Formats: sequence, structure tokens, C-alpha cells
Amino acid sequence: MPALPELSFPDGLIFFSGGGGEEGAAFADALLSLFILFVAAKIGEEVFRRINQPGVIGELIGGFIVGPFALGLADVTITAEVFAELGVVILLFTVGLEVRIDDLIKVGPMAIAVGTIGFILPIIAGVGIGLAIGEDILPAALIGLALAATSIGITSRVLAEMGMLDRAFARVILGAAIVDDILALLAIGLLSGFAEGDLGVDTILTLVAGLAFVGIGLALAPLGRRLPRKIFVWPKFADTPVVPVFIIMFAGALLAQAVGLAAIIGAFVVGLIIAETPVREEVEHGFRSLLGIFAPFFFAVTGANIDMSALLNPELLIIVLVLAVMGVLTKLVGGIAGAWKLGKWNSIVVGMGMSPRGEVGIVVSALGLSLGLISGEIYAVLLAAVILTTLVAPVMLQWAIPRAPRDERHHGGEAGAA
Amino acid sequence: MPALPELSFPDGLIFFSGGGGEEGAAFADALLSLFILFVAAKIGEEVFRRINQPGVIGELIGGFIVGPFALGLADVTITAEVFAELGVVILLFTVGLEVRIDDLIKVGPMAIAVGTIGFILPIIAGVGIGLAIGEDILPAALIGLALAATSIGITSRVLAEMGMLDRAFARVILGAAIVDDILALLAIGLLSGFAEGDLGVDTILTLVAGLAFVGIGLALAPLGRRLPRKIFVWPKFADTPVVPVFIIMFAGALLAQAVGLAAIIGAFVVGLIIAETPVREEVEHGFRSLLGIFAPFFFAVTGANIDMSALLNPELLIIVLVLAVMGVLTKLVGGIAGAWKLGKWNSIVVGMGMSPRGEVGIVVSALGLSLGLISGEIYAVLLAAVILTTLVAPVMLQWAIPRAPRDERHHGGEAGAA
Repeated sequence: MPALPELSFPDGLIFFSGGGGEEGAAFADALLSLFILFVAAKIGEEVFRRINQPGVIGELIGGFIVGPFALGLADVTITAEVFAELGVVILLFTVGLEVRIDDLIKVGPMAIAVGTIGFILPIIAGVGIGLAIGEDILPAALIGLALAATSIGITSRVLAEMGMLDRAFARVILGAAIVDDILALLAIGLLSGFAEGDLGVDTILTLVAGLAFVGIGLALAPLGRRLPRKIFVWPKFADTPVVPVFIIMFAGALLAQAVGLAAIIGAFVVGLIIAETPVREEVEHGFRSLLGIFAPFFFAVTGANIDMSALLNPELLIIVLVLAVMGVLTKLVGGIAGAWKLGKWNSIVVGMGMSPRGEVGIVVSALGLSLGLISGEIYAVLLAAVILTTLVAPVMLQWAIPRAPRDERHHGGEAGAA
Repeated sequence: MPALPELSFPDGLIFFSGGGGEEGAAFADALLSLFILFVAAKIGEEVFRRINQPGVIGELIGGFIVGPFALGLADVTITAEVFAELGVVILLFTVGLEVRIDDLIKVGPMAIAVGTIGFILPIIAGVGIGLAIGEDILPAALIGLALAATSIGITSRVLAEMGMLDRAFARVILGAAIVDDILALLAIGLLSGFAEGDLGVDTILTLVAGLAFVGIGLALAPLGRRLPRKIFVWPKFADTPVVPVFIIMFAGALLAQAVGLAAIIGAFVVGLIIAETPVREEVEHGFRSLLGIFAPFFFAVTGANIDMSALLNPELLIIVLVLAVMGVLTKLVGGIAGAWKLGKWNSIVVGMGMSPRGEVGIVVSALGLSLGLISGEIYAVLLAAVILTTLVAPVMLQWAIPRAPRDERHHGGEAGAA
């Protein structure tokens, strides 16, 4: 055996490695790759936040830089994929945790209008562009779907950083982002069914299962208010509700997969239910470090899977720009049309605030790649477009918000509820 | 493809699975195995805590039950091994976090006496038993070493559950457990060097590196007091010190491996240093959920690797009992001899409190197995003996503590400092 690799990872000192050899090497690679991906994600986040850009984009680019399509320092091992999957599961769980059924109902009609218009228009635009570049209808639909859902995570982080969470437009943006998230999650189930060639009963079953899953979740959520805290801490192993809730979240994710849905739908619905229980704050608090450790792997692994060399092709670069511009415009139209009652500038702000696509767009793109619906080139194109819609949002908002009057008619009085 | 596995894990809905196939199946297996191991560990802990036994033993047995040597519901995948490794790294980090250099110095001489005598005697006993059953000197030394270190985790949990952390004997037990932990960590490095056949310079280098590593850690630790909190939260990505400290801990573990030590030594030393900084409490708090999610994998995976069928052999069962009895007696002698100044019954309590072996004994056994020093049979024997020394401790303490007078001479006045 060569001396240097021995020195940097002596087989015998790695427990569980089965005594070194091939499995020991795979274990050492998995552990080291995790560390490199994590550090790269954090450095990327740091750089982006220092230039006032969303950290998730930095995590993505950090992962790309150390990944196999660039420096090749980190492998995307199955272990890294499991960390990434748990990362997106925990992320969507915590998003569900932030949603209040009642708040949703309060801004309901306007949020539904903004969310639905802003969901349908990007799909139409995406399908049009997809067909125009010669894709079939399913890949074209996937391109549209990748541009359809606003990132509730990114949007809320940007609004919080600007200190705007108490404005009426912020509540509408958050509500609409939830609406298009739910629409997107259902559409993902539908599209997966179609893509697997089950155009008949199975697809309908998946759709019904998806609706039933989300429907039952929304129906059960208010019942959560009646659950006493002791239900979550009755196990002796549970000093806090974190471990029991982690098990429930994990089970929800696996259950969603078992009925043919994406794992994140299950985690999101569990989050919605836990949000209504008395343990919400404890869980939110306890999950903060889990989110901090696991979520970066989702973005870093996603970035590591991007073949950016596709973007050196000027034709593809034009498609990126067209997709990004259409992505911003369609959300703007959705905001203005759906939230017109808030006044011109406030509705423009709503539209701009809906612009950042993030985790759902990335998830849809990754799904399309794993289903074989889209090529690695289109995957890179979609992620680049998603990144652009996210990068322009803070700039647009900084320009438009000072123009939006604080007097926000019948919605202005509720400031602070968001 | 068969319909049922498809239904329970549709390839296309698993992101990052590379479109299903062999890698998708490995990914699905890794994710599901993690869930089963975790739930089994928690059910095991629940059962054991309900019968007033340490939860870690339950986690171990839970892992065994679902593991490949029993029901076979969960595979010990590389991903599970990585979770287990991070679990023991985080565990030893948090143990380091609980150690105060000053407290250590206060009960120093007595703790060093108890720790050292209680470290050497079990090794002598283990070597004797090992040689008596026909093992070579290195495997015999490993058997002794597995019985040498008290589990600081288990001991402190037992004392806390009995409300005894404010007694002088508790401080001596904790101090002595730290001393034998450090001795054990150094001995692990030495033994690994010997076992890898490097009886010359490399072994000495490993020992020197180990001493230097722990020495530098102890020397640097007091300097931690001068580190302001802002050093840990200057990155924009760090709202709390948890993520930066996680990176430092992970780096320390990898660095220890790189110089030929066990990863846990690095994590322990980083914990010692962070313990002296102003962010200790924040880190302790933030790492609670990480410990709760990762540590069970260490015990569950360890349990899943035990081939209990070895214990059906009456000869091996006798060896287990002999090892366990000698394990308890040697610690008792160490306690009485080292802490005699506390009075007869208090020193007996110290000796009994040193009885539980836990993570270090398990780590040493796992290391011996991975180094090929011991067979699967001896591995099972050692773990069974470790489990027995842990199970008898609470029973013995409940009997002896009421006999130990509260008036603890010159050490009694410091109650509450532990």
C-alpha cells in the first residue's frame, strides 16, 4: 500500500470500516467529502452574504466549485446524497413549521390569486420556450414547473433582512409563495406519474394521494392545537420534543414516498401539523442546529451536480437569459394582477418579491434530471435561470419598496402579524 | 421491475438517485436503514429507561435486534457508519465540553490516583484473562484496555438521575473518569500503532503525536478564556457559534486521524478548548439536538455489529462473567485505594461509580475488531462484559450511597461545584 494515503487515513483508526480495504476507503472518502462539501458551502455562503446576495446561491456555487465538474475535491457519494435528502426534508419541514393556517386564511383570497396566476403564467412561458427549443411536451412542462414556485425560504430571508416582514405586501408574498409551493408539490407528483409512463390509473392515484395527503394534513393541522405538550415528551428518551418530532418528520417523508409522493411533501405536511401544536417554538428552536448542519448539503450537492460547462455555449446562455426574464416578468404580472387592491407600487413589490425561485425550482430540476426528462445541459440552464431570478430580486426590491406607500388600505392595520 | 419495491420506493421520486437502478436502490436502502436503526435505538432506550437502566444499553440492543445478526431489517451501510462516526465524534466533543480544567485541578490528586489505579488494574486483569484463554499479548492488552475506561457519559447520567452530582464522591468520579479516558485515548493510539505492525518509529511517533495533541489541547484550553464570542460569530453565516464550532470539531477529528490518532481524540480536545470559551453554553445548547440525532447511530450501529450467537456458547459466557466481575472489582479497588481519604463508604461509592464502562469500551472493542486483533466472538464477549459492568452500577450505587455519610471531611464544603 502507498505510504501517503495510509498516513492521511490510517484504515485501522476508522471505526466501522471493516478493517480497511475497499469499504474502508469508501468510508474515508464519504467522511472527507462531507467535510469538504460543508466547508465549501459555508465559504460560498459567506462570500455571497458579504456582497448582499442570498446565502443559498453561495452554498450552491461552493458545492459546484469543489464538486466533480470543477475542482473534483469532493465526491457526491451516496452518503452525501442522504445528507442532502435529509437537508431538504428538514428544510421543507421547517417551512411548514412557519406556516399558520389562520394567517393563510386571512390573506387567503389575494394570496391565492397572486400564487395561482404567478404559478400558471411561468408554466405557460416555460412550455412555450421548451417547445420553441425543440423539447417534447413533458420536458417543456418540467421547464415551466421549475420556474413556477417562489422560494418561500429565500423570500422570507430577503424580507427579514430588509426589515419588511411587518408590511402587508410581505404577508401576501408569503401566503402566495405557500400557495404556489403547494401547487408545485402537487404538480411534481402529477409530472412524475406521467414521466414514469403511467399515464393512466397510477398517475391519477398519485394525484389523488397527493391531494389527500395535503388535504388530510391541512384538515388535521387545526386538531394539533388540542394536542398537549406531554404527548410529545411522554417518552423517557424525550427531554424535549425534538427527537420524537424528528422521527415523525422522517416517518412522514418515508410515508409520502411510499404512496408515490416526494419525501418533502410528507415533511412539509408534518411541519404544518406541528406548527399548530404547543411545541412549535421548542421544535423550531431545536431544529435550528439540525437545519444549519443538514440543509447546506442539499445546496452543495445540488451545485456539485451542475455541469456548468454547458453554459459556455452561447446558445444555451441565451436560453438562460430568456428563461430568467420570462420568470421575472410572469411573477410581476401575477403580483400586479393578483394584488392590485394593495395599490400600484405595493402590487409591483409583491410581484418582485415573488421572483426568487429557490429550493423548489432546484428540486424540480433535480427531479427532471433523475427522471431522465431533461439533459444535463437543460439542468444547468434551469439552475442558472433559477439563480438569476433570485439574484435580481433584492436589487429590484431595494428600488421599488421606497416607492410603495405605507398606507396600505384595508390591509395596513394588521402590521406585525406576519 | 417488480411492482412492490417500485411502490414502496419509486426511483424517480428519490432526488439525487441518478435515475434509480443500483445506485437508487443503495440510496433508498441507506435512507430506510437509517430510519429503522434510529427508531430501534429509541425504542430500546425507552424500554431500558422504563426499567431504570441506562438508555445507551437499550440503544445498543435495539440496533442489534434490527441488525443483520438478528431480524435483518436494517443494513449497516457506509452511510450508517458515517452517521455512527459523527455520532461518537459529537459525543466525545460534548464530553470534552463538560470538562473544566480548573475543576479537574481541584480534585486533581485524588482523581488521578483513582483514575490511574482503576486504569492499570483492569488492564492487568484483562491481560491475565486474555492470556489464560490463549490469546496473544496484543489481543489480551486490547481486552484489558476495553475494560479500563469508565464511561463519563454513563456515569454522569446515572449520578444526575440519582440527584448526586453535588456530592464530593461525584466530583472525584467525574475527574477520575476523565483521567482514565485520557489514558485510554493515549493507549488506543499506542495499541493501534503496535497492531499495525509498526513496532518502531511509527508507534513512537503516534504516541508522541497523541501526547502532543492532548498536551497542546490542555495547554491551549485556558487561552480559550481570552477568546471573545465575536471570534465565533464573525462569519455572516453564523447567527450562533454552532456551525463554526461544528466545522472546527469536524476539522479536529480529521486532523487527529491525519496524524494517526482516533478521530474522537481530536473532537474531545476541541471540546476541552471550547469549554473554556464564552460560547460554551450556547454550543452545549445548540449541540443538544445534534447529539440527540447522531449519537444513537453510534450505539445502534455498534449493536448491529454484535454477533450475539457467540454468547450461546457456555464457555464464552463464563469468560463474559469473569471479565465483568473482574471489571467491577478492579474499579472498586481503584476507588477505595485512591479515594480512601473520603472515608470508607464514600470511597466504596467512588469505586462503584467507576464501574460503568460505555462508549470508550465499545470504541476499543470496535477498534480491535476493525484492526483484526480480536475475533467476532471476543468482540461479542467484550461488549457483553461492558454491558454488565454498566448494568450493575446503578444497583450497587442505590445500595451503597445511603451508607456513605454526607460529612465528607475537607471535600464536603465544595458541594454544588460539580
